[in-house]
Amino acid sequence: MTSGRIVADWIAADWGTSNLRVWAMAADGTPRAEAGSDEGMGRLAPGEFEPALLRLIASWLDGRRVPVIACGMVGARQGWIEARYRAVPCTAVDAAAMIAAPTQDPQISVRIAPGLSQAQPPDVMRGEETQIAGALALHPGFDGVLCLPGTHCKWVHVSAGEVVSFQTFMTGELFDLIARQSVLRHGMQGEGDDDQAFDTAVADTLSRPEKIGARLFSLRAEGLLTGLAPATARARLSGLLIGMELAAARPYWLGQPVALIGSPRLSAAYSRALAAQGVQALILDGTACTLAGLTSLYRQEAAR
Amino acid sequence: MTSGRIVADWIAADWGTSNLRVWAMAADGTPRAEAGSDEGMGRLAPGEFEPALLRLIASWLDGRRVPVIACGMVGARQGWIEARYRAVPCTAVDAAAMIAAPTQDPQISVRIAPGLSQAQPPDVMRGEETQIAGALALHPGFDGVLCLPGTHCKWVHVSAGEVVSFQTFMTGELFDLIARQSVLRHGMQGEGDDDQAFDTAVADTLSRPEKIGARLFSLRAEGLLTGLAPATARARLSGLLIGMELAAARPYWLGQPVALIGSPRLSAAYSRALAAQGVQALILDGTACTLAGLTSLYRQEAAR
Repeated sequence: MTSGRIVADWIAADWGTSNLRVWAMAADGTPRAEAGSDEGMGRLAPGEFEPALLRLIASWLDGRRVPVIACGMVGARQGWIEARYRAVPCTAVDAAAMIAAPTQDPQISVRIAPGLSQAQPPDVMRGEETQIAGALALHPGFDGVLCLPGTHCKWVHVSAGEVVSFQTFMTGELFDLIARQSVLRHGMQGEGDDDQAFDTAVADTLSRPEKIGARLFSLRAEGLLTGLAPATARARLSGLLIGMELAAARPYWLGQPVALIGSPRLSAAYSRALAAQGVQALILDGTACTLAGLTSLYRQEAAR
Repeated sequence: MTSGRIVADWIAADWGTSNLRVWAMAADGTPRAEAGSDEGMGRLAPGEFEPALLRLIASWLDGRRVPVIACGMVGARQGWIEARYRAVPCTAVDAAAMIAAPTQDPQISVRIAPGLSQAQPPDVMRGEETQIAGALALHPGFDGVLCLPGTHCKWVHVSAGEVVSFQTFMTGELFDLIARQSVLRHGMQGEGDDDQAFDTAVADTLSRPEKIGARLFSLRAEGLLTGLAPATARARLSGLLIGMELAAARPYWLGQPVALIGSPRLSAAYSRALAAQGVQALILDGTACTLAGLTSLYRQEAAR
């Protein structure tokens, strides 16, 4: 009765603040199965990480000891166990710097990848370093700039296989706060896109970034005075924030090869905004990069 | 036994989204008593406004019919009754445009002041128009720019007794959202000020406004890497946002007489930021302006 049973040679884990995703992996880096839950780092005390992990992977275990390679906020100070940042410039990941997490179950051996830090200007990342390693594994020799849109968008200068510098923008978090919790939320409900409104808004803050504070309230005023459509208001908010980010990130993308790593929807928005500036960005799948990066770590670890 | 009893010749009401403040007024504009509650417009259905008002003013009523003059979000579409915006350019207030609110109690006659709207760029205000009228009543002949810091800061060009144009910035709301609900909240708890950090941050976004998205996350990164003090982080966040606002509001304050209307704390911050740009702003008390504006409306109404 072992037919159909998934056995993991190793387990890949992407453990962020809000979510946990795991994959039963073959030794060659092929995912055999996946699972996920909302037991992110933000909800767990240190003693609760191992049970949360086992709830998802128990059926993939058969008594043998299996390596688990994890990345993300699970390695933050308030996570399972702190995996201290590695300082750039350095390679995106390094198996020798992974931290062993304390476990009870003899069937798992958990290692957590550290994030990266930068002294000047001060900056940090956790999780994205693994996606960067994956992007470089999938596109060996890539030299240029990686942009990882999300709650905290990262712009990363990569050269000769190392992360040279990076900068974080709170664009995604600002969008969510403003769209869901500010006075603008009243005009943001509903579905649909408005590419033209997005394009105009990107161009607007890209050329006049200081106007954003005033442009934001205009969305509310137009809603009250002229009944601005919610899809238009949302597209314009997204465009204003992405345009402001592009204005500040110009030293990253100007004249550089750029690759986007993220969700299809967000990558499409950034790609559209960059294309208007003459930059044709390569689009990489975020999950594929995460898995390729964790696989790099697994292989490095196995070879040590 | 009437000694010590407060009798109102009329009642002034400042009725915002979150709070209701009322004053028992003498006919000459002197406040005899005041009261307040958190029964702001945001918490009330149309039928609940009159009871909320009566809970605060009942002891000031003696059977005679008393005028109540109200300003603020109480006149919004979702308020007690809509008092439609008056379009600028126009005087700050006009008693003839006030709307009577439906009431049951024969002891009160409630009139609500409308806000102001601007077609291009689209903008609206409610409540501030009454403070502007008050500022002009307290400083007749003022010609220049009024700045009303708050959740939604207004910059208002006033000339020849009329509101010529205005612009709203969401600076206060953004500060609250970011300081209380974003990832930066972790490094913002505590007391104290840091004037130097504030000044540097104002200068920073005033000259490079597009950098704000990156500067924000730096506060988090510095908290993690170097233990940035919460007072410094808060002062810097305030400075970054006010600096960005000043960058966009430059056409308002540059070379103009400027007066600030607001809480002492916020006015002090804006005054400090403006002083660094060579602008010595007059500071007016927000409550005094509100009462003077409502008194103007009461007198206009009595003279009709």
